[in-house]
Amino acid sequence: MTADDTNALLFANEAFYMAFQTHDMRAMDALWSDTQTVSCIHPGWPPLIGRDAVMESWLMLLANQAAPNITFSHPAATIIAGTGRVICYEALPEGTLVATNLFHHDGNQWRMFHHQASPSPAPEEADDDVSPPPRLQ
Amino acid sequence: MTADDTNALLFANEAFYMAFQTHDMRAMDALWSDTQTVSCIHPGWPPLIGRDAVMESWLMLLANQAAPNITFSHPAATIIAGTGRVICYEALPEGTLVATNLFHHDGNQWRMFHHQASPSPAPEEADDDVSPPPRLQ
Repeated sequence: MTADDTNALLFANEAFYMAFQTHDMRAMDALWSDTQTVSCIHPGWPPLIGRDAVMESWLMLLANQAAPNITFSHPAATIIAGTGRVICYEALPEGTLVATNLFHHDGNQWRMFHHQASPSPAPEEADDDVSPPPRLQ
Repeated sequence: MTADDTNALLFANEAFYMAFQTHDMRAMDALWSDTQTVSCIHPGWPPLIGRDAVMESWLMLLANQAAPNITFSHPAATIIAGTGRVICYEALPEGTLVATNLFHHDGNQWRMFHHQASPSPAPEEADDDVSPPPRLQ
């Protein structure tokens, strides 16, 4: 893993949230892999597997102009066995989510093949790290 | 990807739930990668990154003999860019979760490097598939 790979991975993760924030379906479509089986688990949804189901969900979500704004923070990027993994927090008006975003490299760029977002405590502002000690809840 | 690879991946996923069900910390420890940066997102917890934090969480969860029983169903396994991905439902007395379990192959076996479980609708019994049409909620 080189720093460049990780920077490109973080850039792809940022591009995902930019497409989300700007309701840019064309950018969202281009970000997702078209060679691998993609999967997406929106909060409270059943798992979606396959490009048609995943893109249909984004079309619905991005078409909703009243959708709340989303921002991400604390991205932690690691490359493992050819897969780029970014774990980050997502801030919405209703609360905090934690997301796992997975990418594979198509020879040219990192392409997303999995997204799962689920409810989480807010990040602790004092921490620079996304891995505070576990808390029993 | 061969059928054997996928079967071994499903076997590793089953071994994870067996360790969970039987509170077998030694088996759980052996399942998780000791060469890659592991991550784990339990429902409602902040993300845990690194082997120490992840194993400490399993030690706490498995030490609780009163913990509810967990079963999994509808596993969907795919191998992408060297990563084995299994998405499945988890049934607990309190409700249904959906989990993403990621593995890398260490040359001998599939080793887990990521687990995220989050609240989900129950699977539709009529479906053999984990990918029903998306529902807005």
